[in-house]
Amino acid sequence: MQFRIGIDLGGTNIKAGIVNENYEILLEKSIPTLVKRSADEVIRDMAALVRSLIQEAGIGMQTVLGAGVGSPGTVDAKKGIVVYSNNFGWEDIRLGECLSAALHMPVRVSNDANCAALGEVRAGAARKYANCVLLTLGTGVGSGIVIDGHIFEGAHAGGAELGHTSLVADGEECTCGRRGCLEAYVSATALIRDTRRAAGADPASMIWRFCNGDLERVNGRTVFDASAAGDDCARGVVDRYIRYLGEGIVNAVNLFRPDIVLLGGGVCKQGEILTKPLNAYVGRHCFAGDKGFIPEIGIAGLENSAGIIGAAALILADTEGVAF
Amino acid sequence: MQFRIGIDLGGTNIKAGIVNENYEILLEKSIPTLVKRSADEVIRDMAALVRSLIQEAGIGMQTVLGAGVGSPGTVDAKKGIVVYSNNFGWEDIRLGECLSAALHMPVRVSNDANCAALGEVRAGAARKYANCVLLTLGTGVGSGIVIDGHIFEGAHAGGAELGHTSLVADGEECTCGRRGCLEAYVSATALIRDTRRAAGADPASMIWRFCNGDLERVNGRTVFDASAAGDDCARGVVDRYIRYLGEGIVNAVNLFRPDIVLLGGGVCKQGEILTKPLNAYVGRHCFAGDKGFIPEIGIAGLENSAGIIGAAALILADTEGVAF
Repeated sequence: MQFRIGIDLGGTNIKAGIVNENYEILLEKSIPTLVKRSADEVIRDMAALVRSLIQEAGIGMQTVLGAGVGSPGTVDAKKGIVVYSNNFGWEDIRLGECLSAALHMPVRVSNDANCAALGEVRAGAARKYANCVLLTLGTGVGSGIVIDGHIFEGAHAGGAELGHTSLVADGEECTCGRRGCLEAYVSATALIRDTRRAAGADPASMIWRFCNGDLERVNGRTVFDASAAGDDCARGVVDRYIRYLGEGIVNAVNLFRPDIVLLGGGVCKQGEILTKPLNAYVGRHCFAGDKGFIPEIGIAGLENSAGIIGAAALILADTEGVAF
Repeated sequence: MQFRIGIDLGGTNIKAGIVNENYEILLEKSIPTLVKRSADEVIRDMAALVRSLIQEAGIGMQTVLGAGVGSPGTVDAKKGIVVYSNNFGWEDIRLGECLSAALHMPVRVSNDANCAALGEVRAGAARKYANCVLLTLGTGVGSGIVIDGHIFEGAHAGGAELGHTSLVADGEECTCGRRGCLEAYVSATALIRDTRRAAGADPASMIWRFCNGDLERVNGRTVFDASAAGDDCARGVVDRYIRYLGEGIVNAVNLFRPDIVLLGGGVCKQGEILTKPLNAYVGRHCFAGDKGFIPEIGIAGLENSAGIIGAAALILADTEGVAF
């Protein structure tokens, strides 16, 4: 039996797991990230976490093929470098090289959304397929693209960012400095903004009831709850959100033509409320219509373990020969 | 010496050339396409054209590695099938298989813009690079994406269509049935539409002088000429066109991070009038700013021969083993 280590490097916690050949997590541990520390300290803790996992699981080091890391920010996967992470305050951190030296095993690094997409292809909602686009609808919009079973990164660092392609040029402000990116319309943050705006303009909206009269308490569920209760104002926000999400998915299809498009992140808990109209929308609007391949739109299956499984899947059977 | 045949299948003419190992065209011939005919007749003529080229060049059949075809429309490159071409009225035409049977050599098919991009990488303005995005600004907006020296098609037919990703959701009508695609803002057709609109709203604009007082005579050059002559109305149209093109290029960079982005088609004759502001715009707006890789924006180099050279380049040295 051979094992892979998957590490999900988050802003709050570092989660690591031992993954077997069937992409099942045998053992998982988590420690706080404490992002204010230097990268050296974070990497030292990651290495210690991995060593303790291996010891606790009682597997020999020689059975471990290597470790993969899913990192936030812009990653140069070929070089194993975190080029830039705003949240971590990291620039040009040689994460792959440093962790490989500490663990004496091959290490691969990719963006966290890329890893989540690969995890879904290996063991999640896309496991029947080799081609998948994952959009994570959270604070921001992450995207992972898997083509022919491998992560598509683009040619240089900073590619595969569907969340930062335009939906409405000159539209809403985006965190990336541009205006009108997909992220500025379909992130949970954008949905909350639009929910507040709609309620602010409509004192009779049931949105007010679902946030106890305090717009600060609006979250990504509020507008769906109000819409389900029959509120027209909320339904308008939901319909617009779904249409924008549909446009973003059509863009992804017109470029990548995956077998399946998966939605992850908190908003995707709405399930069929999203996927039913989205499948209809995408079926109608893709380039070349029904002459082209129309993928299914579904919900990600692995939730929190996609990151660990996908990071582990960065390590291929022949990664051993790769030296940083 | 080994040779490849490149075929550029256009709406007006079928152009074919014999291409040597240095990606130079030794001999080129052209015949009318006559699109109203059946696909069988067109393919028979293509085969006859290739045979006459080989005969005239005096090269032996055994020195020809195969033939590549750049076709308009939606192409399934893996299967050599033209899935759909609106202009030709073709659906599910097994072009690769039929031409291969007629010529007794391996045949590969891809979309025409894909072939042009590959041609630029092998022998044109991107020949120093392995990663290139080409946007052809003509009647529509074609796009070709080359990653690691090979055409990126997406997983299924109908991908890599940057012209049909949104710039302004719900914006201008696009030929694909959606609204607000990049094509609806930066094609020559869109530029002519915007030139006419601007002149229509401004009787004093010098645009009127450059089209002899007849908006029907506006072409893709008119607004650039009027802008160069100092007309503010025309300059506004040009500035907006360049900004939209910049947005579309930033989208392409945020997804594909190529070494270089090339512009082809009639509008690109404006050269530095486009590339100077576009390089500045793209440098400012890409995701991760100066922490990410910022490609150069340039003008395609091969003009009309890119299609033949790129189609020939579909044939790899080991394509011989591939049978349709």
